[in-house]
Amino acid sequence: MESRPAPEWFTTTWFNTPEALNLERVRGRVVVVHAFQMLCPGCVAYGIPQAQRIAETFKSEPLTVIGLHTVFEHHEAMGIASLRAFLHEYRVRFPVGVDAPGPSGDPIPCTMRAYAMQGTPTTVLIDARGQLRRQVFGVHDDLLLGAEIGCLLLEARRGADGGCGVG
Amino acid sequence: MESRPAPEWFTTTWFNTPEALNLERVRGRVVVVHAFQMLCPGCVAYGIPQAQRIAETFKSEPLTVIGLHTVFEHHEAMGIASLRAFLHEYRVRFPVGVDAPGPSGDPIPCTMRAYAMQGTPTTVLIDARGQLRRQVFGVHDDLLLGAEIGCLLLEARRGADGGCGVG
Amino acid sequence: MESRPAPEWFTTTWFNTPEALNLERVRGRVVVVHAFQMLCPGCVAYGIPQAQRIAETFKSEPLTVIGLHTVFEHHEAMGIASLRAFLHEYRVRFPVGVDAPGPSGDPIPCTMRAYAMQGTPTTVLIDARGQLRRQVFGVHDDLLLGAEIGCLLLEARRGADGGCGVG
Amino acid sequence: MESRPAPEWFTTTWFNTPEALNLERVRGRVVVVHAFQMLCPGCVAYGIPQAQRIAETFKSEPLTVIGLHTVFEHHEAMGIASLRAFLHEYRVRFPVGVDAPGPSGDPIPCTMRAYAMQGTPTTVLIDARGQLRRQVFGVHDDLLLGAEIGCLLLEARRGADGGCGVG
Repeated sequence: MESRPAPEWFTTTWFNTPEALNLERVRGRVVVVHAFQMLCPGCVAYGIPQAQRIAETFKSEPLTVIGLHTVFEHHEAMGIASLRAFLHEYRVRFPVGVDAPGPSGDPIPCTMRAYAMQGTPTTVLIDARGQLRRQVFGVHDDLLLGAEIGCLLLEARRGADGGCGVG
Repeated sequence: MESRPAPEWFTTTWFNTPEALNLERVRGRVVVVHAFQMLCPGCVAYGIPQAQRIAETFKSEPLTVIGLHTVFEHHEAMGIASLRAFLHEYRVRFPVGVDAPGPSGDPIPCTMRAYAMQGTPTTVLIDARGQLRRQVFGVHDDLLLGAEIGCLLLEARRGADGGCGVG
Repeated sequence: MESRPAPEWFTTTWFNTPEALNLERVRGRVVVVHAFQMLCPGCVAYGIPQAQRIAETFKSEPLTVIGLHTVFEHHEAMGIASLRAFLHEYRVRFPVGVDAPGPSGDPIPCTMRAYAMQGTPTTVLIDARGQLRRQVFGVHDDLLLGAEIGCLLLEARRGADGGCGVG
Repeated sequence: MESRPAPEWFTTTWFNTPEALNLERVRGRVVVVHAFQMLCPGCVAYGIPQAQRIAETFKSEPLTVIGLHTVFEHHEAMGIASLRAFLHEYRVRFPVGVDAPGPSGDPIPCTMRAYAMQGTPTTVLIDARGQLRRQVFGVHDDLLLGAEIGCLLLEARRGADGGCGVG
């Protein structure tokens, strides 16, 4: 697995959390970031359900699932009111941040740009020390993603400095 | 199967068709109306894909699939711009009409009210003579829906006055 | 749809029926024959479940689902004892006949040969007058199969002489 | 996770391997044992495909997938010839051992008895030091199983003495 400091998140609004989240607040926990767009078919069919299953499966572990709404197309179609209704209808319970709009003329939002994501869905794994360990564009296999999570959880438990590199 | 004149559709906008559709224009064809909301999970997971498969499977038959966007909740989240992006992203190619808003104070749109639909998704079958023959709320089984369509197509071919009543 | 007299079935054993079935016994009913092998993955994953859903969906209609065990390979692996356990474990409730072995040296059983089936699964539709109307090798789409069944049921109800030809 | 020495396997025949496997031969590798019956619907629909995906996903890791044919019912229906055809048709490529019949009068085969398995499918995880770490009867979730595998692989890499305990 790669390992470099995870870029900070730039967000404007959060849902399902009393306060905005940032890397500092989740330090010490394995973090699964699910970057999505509410009108992205692959996100709705695969990504969001997978993120929900991760949150449920590992709810007793030091692991946090975070949604990141990275709108890079159809901006007018996926505003805050639409996202709120979407999260309600799809029963998304984990914290979801809205990626901050890019500088004038850039359709790509800030965090998406900072992570150099290629599209949605994108799954990002950040370890307990804040290192970006894995970033996958597209559908990510349950078995392999599970193995990566299991490995990072053991690292976190040991305070270890790496060793994971599955698949 | 029941049989009564299908209520007329009241719509404000259409997509995927050069002109607004009404019952008169589709007379002589079996019509499958798929009433949906773009943020209804059951519509996205089952209803829309089924409507797309119907349109594809029976493309050589005198059958028309029509989508009807019957928004009765989260109105601010499912406006025209959002629906346009949705239809584009989900590659919906059949004609889709936007159900006209209900009279002041009524969240239920006009056509949904006229058909007394209970929610979304709702599937409506109209025969070649404009009679409403079947209306189902929720997921409708492929085999049974197929049988109903096959029966109505034979009726249409014969100019017959009924006889279908499958399942 | 094609239309020619359905060849008679040649069978050695039957399950789930007190007496052997033949075309004469099912005259007046629409018949869906599901030809399968118990160790054919496509039959187990798609064909058998579809046949079970047909039997359940149309149980109030004049329709009979029949399984035909057409073993043309691994004969020693799919004997009567194995088939009996298979039908029990997969909860197959509709009548199943065992296709009679071919003449010496022919691995293809008799009925499979008479129908010129290309492999398993194969779905055969026979109308109420004993005419073979449709034969499909491989996975057969639920919507289209449903339409064919719905059409043949209307024909049967009317005592009609054809007209079905969906898709 | 639990941890106790894995009981030895008692087998009569092996497929897909030039020599019989035992615990000693796989020492140093994480072992996933998939106990199944060829006529068990849950094994065919979920267990076998999962075992195949595990073998494929972790093919570069020190991990071995082993099938164990633990017949405890319909013995006459699932003999060697039937199993051989089954493995061929379902394209099972990993080693499969046939669990040795129980002592006279016991329908439960020897290894199944030694592990006190409750039925099929059963998934067993054995770590690189030969310890039985996890045993699950029924469908086992991909994400959770993946996490357990990922954790055991990191343990194996470190020569560690435990620490895994996911979910």
